[in-house]
Amino acid sequence: MLKIGNYIFESRLFTGTGKYSSASIMEDSILASGSELVTVALKRVDLKNQIQDNLLHKLNHPHIKLLPNTSGVRNAKEAIFAAQLAREALEIDLIKLEIHPDPKYLMPDPIETLRATEELSKLGFVVLPYIHADPVLCKRLEEVGTAAVMPLGSPIGSNKGLKTIDFLEIIIDQSNVPVIVDAGIGAPSDASKAMEIGADAVLVNTAIAVSPDPIAMGNAFKLAVEAGRIAFEAKLAPQHTGASASSPLTSFLDD
Amino acid sequence: MLKIGNYIFESRLFTGTGKYSSASIMEDSILASGSELVTVALKRVDLKNQIQDNLLHKLNHPHIKLLPNTSGVRNAKEAIFAAQLAREALEIDLIKLEIHPDPKYLMPDPIETLRATEELSKLGFVVLPYIHADPVLCKRLEEVGTAAVMPLGSPIGSNKGLKTIDFLEIIIDQSNVPVIVDAGIGAPSDASKAMEIGADAVLVNTAIAVSPDPIAMGNAFKLAVEAGRIAFEAKLAPQHTGASASSPLTSFLDD
Amino acid sequence: MLKIGNYIFESRLFTGTGKYSSASIMEDSILASGSELVTVALKRVDLKNQIQDNLLHKLNHPHIKLLPNTSGVRNAKEAIFAAQLAREALEIDLIKLEIHPDPKYLMPDPIETLRATEELSKLGFVVLPYIHADPVLCKRLEEVGTAAVMPLGSPIGSNKGLKTIDFLEIIIDQSNVPVIVDAGIGAPSDASKAMEIGADAVLVNTAIAVSPDPIAMGNAFKLAVEAGRIAFEAKLAPQHTGASASSPLTSFLDD
Amino acid sequence: MLKIGNYIFESRLFTGTGKYSSASIMEDSILASGSELVTVALKRVDLKNQIQDNLLHKLNHPHIKLLPNTSGVRNAKEAIFAAQLAREALEIDLIKLEIHPDPKYLMPDPIETLRATEELSKLGFVVLPYIHADPVLCKRLEEVGTAAVMPLGSPIGSNKGLKTIDFLEIIIDQSNVPVIVDAGIGAPSDASKAMEIGADAVLVNTAIAVSPDPIAMGNAFKLAVEAGRIAFEAKLAPQHTGASASSPLTSFLDD
Repeated sequence: MLKIGNYIFESRLFTGTGKYSSASIMEDSILASGSELVTVALKRVDLKNQIQDNLLHKLNHPHIKLLPNTSGVRNAKEAIFAAQLAREALEIDLIKLEIHPDPKYLMPDPIETLRATEELSKLGFVVLPYIHADPVLCKRLEEVGTAAVMPLGSPIGSNKGLKTIDFLEIIIDQSNVPVIVDAGIGAPSDASKAMEIGADAVLVNTAIAVSPDPIAMGNAFKLAVEAGRIAFEAKLAPQHTGASASSPLTSFLDD
Repeated sequence: MLKIGNYIFESRLFTGTGKYSSASIMEDSILASGSELVTVALKRVDLKNQIQDNLLHKLNHPHIKLLPNTSGVRNAKEAIFAAQLAREALEIDLIKLEIHPDPKYLMPDPIETLRATEELSKLGFVVLPYIHADPVLCKRLEEVGTAAVMPLGSPIGSNKGLKTIDFLEIIIDQSNVPVIVDAGIGAPSDASKAMEIGADAVLVNTAIAVSPDPIAMGNAFKLAVEAGRIAFEAKLAPQHTGASASSPLTSFLDD
Repeated sequence: MLKIGNYIFESRLFTGTGKYSSASIMEDSILASGSELVTVALKRVDLKNQIQDNLLHKLNHPHIKLLPNTSGVRNAKEAIFAAQLAREALEIDLIKLEIHPDPKYLMPDPIETLRATEELSKLGFVVLPYIHADPVLCKRLEEVGTAAVMPLGSPIGSNKGLKTIDFLEIIIDQSNVPVIVDAGIGAPSDASKAMEIGADAVLVNTAIAVSPDPIAMGNAFKLAVEAGRIAFEAKLAPQHTGASASSPLTSFLDD
Repeated sequence: MLKIGNYIFESRLFTGTGKYSSASIMEDSILASGSELVTVALKRVDLKNQIQDNLLHKLNHPHIKLLPNTSGVRNAKEAIFAAQLAREALEIDLIKLEIHPDPKYLMPDPIETLRATEELSKLGFVVLPYIHADPVLCKRLEEVGTAAVMPLGSPIGSNKGLKTIDFLEIIIDQSNVPVIVDAGIGAPSDASKAMEIGADAVLVNTAIAVSPDPIAMGNAFKLAVEAGRIAFEAKLAPQHTGASASSPLTSFLDD
């Protein structure tokens, strides 16, 4: 079981709501994925009128918690304001902090993210900051009260997989809070790999949403995350240089 | 469903019997993997006295077929003789052809393997040759009647994963017989990746057998192979350079 | 030609002084490398008595400039103090800023590094900060007056090469100051690769110093950096999927 | 110095003549590369009238030897006939054996290549066969008298670099004849890398010929091959997990 703040999750696959072709397909894909934490962009939610909000309605399942994100804000001040609006409207203290001033590559800002994490933690939020895979930044976030860290695997939406794996391993080795690999996971094998090296969870959105069959893909990621977690707990066999036969090599005919 | 010769398999995870700490753990691991085709080295089977053979006894489950392998032979002639002995003793016409003259790296011999495949196919065997990931060799094996091809991912027992992926993709693109990735698969993510690119099955032995918890690892590989196959059928999203947000980027505060 | 602050360099290979077996071998290796900018740890220099300092004496060549580094400091305040000492003693306003609070992985601290860069730039230093390959941090450093950025390729001394290449490409695409790849370059091919993608320079120390023949290795890196720079300027041919013959394929015998 | 058959080469960069925009640029690029062995497709040479042949004329430099190749043949018989024509017309016993029946991926045929190598070696040719990076095939070619082996790095013309590096290392470890990496080398860093792991030479054509500035690129590859060879002889420093400072880490301020 995974614990973030006071929330408990059995599924280690977090998902998103962007890029689906319809709200119905989104709902079915998320259900197929078994995900219990689903991020929603505040921008997409009709905060004043949430009872009729179609997006929220589709996510209204007892095992699913919402994780509002601050996508679109440019600095700590905007992020804090957005988080407060979300808490008030949705009555949830979880917040995924995304501050990316750069519209081309959408890379997160380490300085503003640290500042906002500190402030939001003081305000009682359970903060999950999206960050570059920077080991020192992760420790600084821990010091200011972050509930988890969400380092990127590769640029958002690139589907390039775990390009930062050498640094994710360091982060996982050093972290006292859950490490959730976010961004770039493009295939079930990437998700499994992240879990095999000891990530606590992964967040997958684009790779499910833009597949020609997102419901099947939701299920594929569910299985892959389970596979990777089991393998991490069972421990992988080490890699070798050279080869090592699994069948006996004494000549069959010489017996 | 996967068809090799006249045999039908629902599971796309093939396993082996080497390197386990006990026959019992081997049995439980293979059962946990859901594997329906299990390779055994002829050398390890007591052919004259198979009723009491402990190894065979453990594999005696209705959903499991045996795939005797010729590990230890050095050329086509020895391989053909070994295959015939196996067919007579075990009453099975499936044969995994392994001819590796080199004891250090255990790389397969393309010339002798082609020769043995041709002869064994004529003799009515369902031949599954273990080979280097050589696209032209795969086509030549097809021409002489092979039932499948088993290109390696990386050296046997190295657990290095899919080092030959660029060539596996060519082989899969061109093949008219099932392509089973054999050797080198060290983690569930490797197995998932092989399935995602369109392999028909994978064979995993060392990575399960030498894990501290081989039963759990058998299950992990089962899930990963399923995940990869589903993803292949659902089609992966393409990779992008640059980034592409899954959450809307218009500024939250400007609405 | 490369310009950093008001300094002009013809060589794009920067080197270091650590880990050599003797000061003489260090001198000969650096001369063989053609390097014109050599980093020295302040700690290793006898600041009060530099006329007799053997290290500085060996580096006393007209084409070589010193680049004092702050290795060993833990925060911005210590870094600023160290830089001021260096300027006073060595009469040089170049400073390589290294702030790594973590003694195990030696990863740089983004927050303290930005703070120190801002302050040192105001104090008239030509600042070259060693940082994680974080594209947003690079832009923030530019805003506060950095003279260059020095993103890491992989952990210091690991010789693992360009593990951060996807992010280095973004940094190079966006940067208005020279980008110098620092840390992790383990082979001439790594240095050549960094230059091919458009880095302005590389800094290499361990890979030269701990080679069994550091003088030859200094020369090898010199050639590789030149090769990579020429290739960048001439532009590489694009990668293709599939193959494309360089020799004609119409059948020779059918003419 | 590199010896193949009775031929001695100082340059370890072999080049080709395909894909250049003009014969003049080809000549200047090859001269800039320092190459002493240049492969020409028999098909492109006017064998009956070679005195006026423009291609051969451009390659008429005392330090350059021609390496006719059999590109376009489909089997051993055609290859042998082509080699004999070449020897007669050009009075050269060197032959680059290329047998690729597949017009899409241009992968070499291991069976026909072995057959032709054996026959041509008996006929007194100095045979350089282009092959897949198959370690056992390399040993079999040695047994039948090959003068060298030319394993591919990645598909011809793909510029993808050393995708077969795990197998090239095995081939180099086992080989008693020179190993020349052929096909796929797309950048000077790839050529340097091949030399660093101990290849005896590399053959580069497409990456030079299709660069916007092939003459500069010829020079870049020359430098990179020299860099890689020097590094191989000087021995690379090993890779480490974790980090290892090259500057002292005791705190500067505590002295």
